[in-house]
Amino acid sequence: MSRLLDDVVGELARLPGIGRRTALRLVIHLLRLDPEDVNQMTGAMERFRHEIKYCTRCNNLSDEELCPICRNESRDSSVVCVVEGVGDVISIENTRQYNGLYHVLGGVISPMQGIGPSDLKIDMLLENIAHGEIKEVILAIGTTVEGETTQFYITRRLEGTGVKISAIARGIGFGDEIEYADELTIAHAIHNRTKVE
Amino acid sequence: MSRLLDDVVGELARLPGIGRRTALRLVIHLLRLDPEDVNQMTGAMERFRHEIKYCTRCNNLSDEELCPICRNESRDSSVVCVVEGVGDVISIENTRQYNGLYHVLGGVISPMQGIGPSDLKIDMLLENIAHGEIKEVILAIGTTVEGETTQFYITRRLEGTGVKISAIARGIGFGDEIEYADELTIAHAIHNRTKVE
Repeated sequence: MSRLLDDVVGELARLPGIGRRTALRLVIHLLRLDPEDVNQMTGAMERFRHEIKYCTRCNNLSDEELCPICRNESRDSSVVCVVEGVGDVISIENTRQYNGLYHVLGGVISPMQGIGPSDLKIDMLLENIAHGEIKEVILAIGTTVEGETTQFYITRRLEGTGVKISAIARGIGFGDEIEYADELTIAHAIHNRTKVE
Repeated sequence: MSRLLDDVVGELARLPGIGRRTALRLVIHLLRLDPEDVNQMTGAMERFRHEIKYCTRCNNLSDEELCPICRNESRDSSVVCVVEGVGDVISIENTRQYNGLYHVLGGVISPMQGIGPSDLKIDMLLENIAHGEIKEVILAIGTTVEGETTQFYITRRLEGTGVKISAIARGIGFGDEIEYADELTIAHAIHNRTKVE
């Protein structure tokens, strides 16, 4: 219909979870914005893609060599929480309940997608541990098959380093109904019940 | 956490239906694209916003003065289908069942959102009708309160022009279950039953 429209719908439809119909809705919305606002949006996208760095210590996204969390001297650098991606860091930070550092793997082991251990920042974690400051590693990895595999692999690699290894608690989430939880979760939650005091 | 990340998430979260969580997912995906591909995407967005025109005859999006549908001489210019937006044109075109022209209102009358008749391209439709070629106007406007108001208003404005006015059929959609259709639709569908031959 219009080449300009076709092009932009096609480009946005390449984003995950955005089909042509959603892309069209977003594009129509662009017409309601000032041209300057669209430039601001595209400028932010370009600057992000071109200028973003990965923290050389934890692999988190960062504007500088070290991310703000690693730079923050009030954080407890003896504890490292290992997560799959940047989104996990943000979710955990939003709880304001954790004061240690992070280590972003950049994915999970997935033979189906051709992602092996060497594609993840596992060696980087071991190098950080070798420097001696880290006392505990908290594994906060999703409970998919790939996540479990990754957790198992990292646990094996950490054997002999002397650090304490823990994993986040599994169980019924707050606000979840037991009736609708899956069998594995219910079984695990019963098996790992905690004492009520 | 990162200014570059914050900026781009904030910008994308301004799009309709995109919350900060979805924006973050889209932004993380940008890192998997080549920088060149990101430039291509942002370039298409900018070109669309800056260069797109509105067809001077039907108000459809267009790269030129007249949109491809209005330029197409094999289309029946005696029938005009009045729609709310560009997405409707695309949906109707996708059926390949309509060979007339369109008229894009650019919205519906909505006092709540401060959109009055003068904000829509209704005068433009009347001017086109005054040129004498149009014999039938098909109203293909949504069945919201705003849509019905708009349809009523346009019908009143078209009185005395001599053009035939029709509205798309309302009823139970193909693939829809009668059990789950709303009462108004069922009542209308029974009242306006068609003879089976």
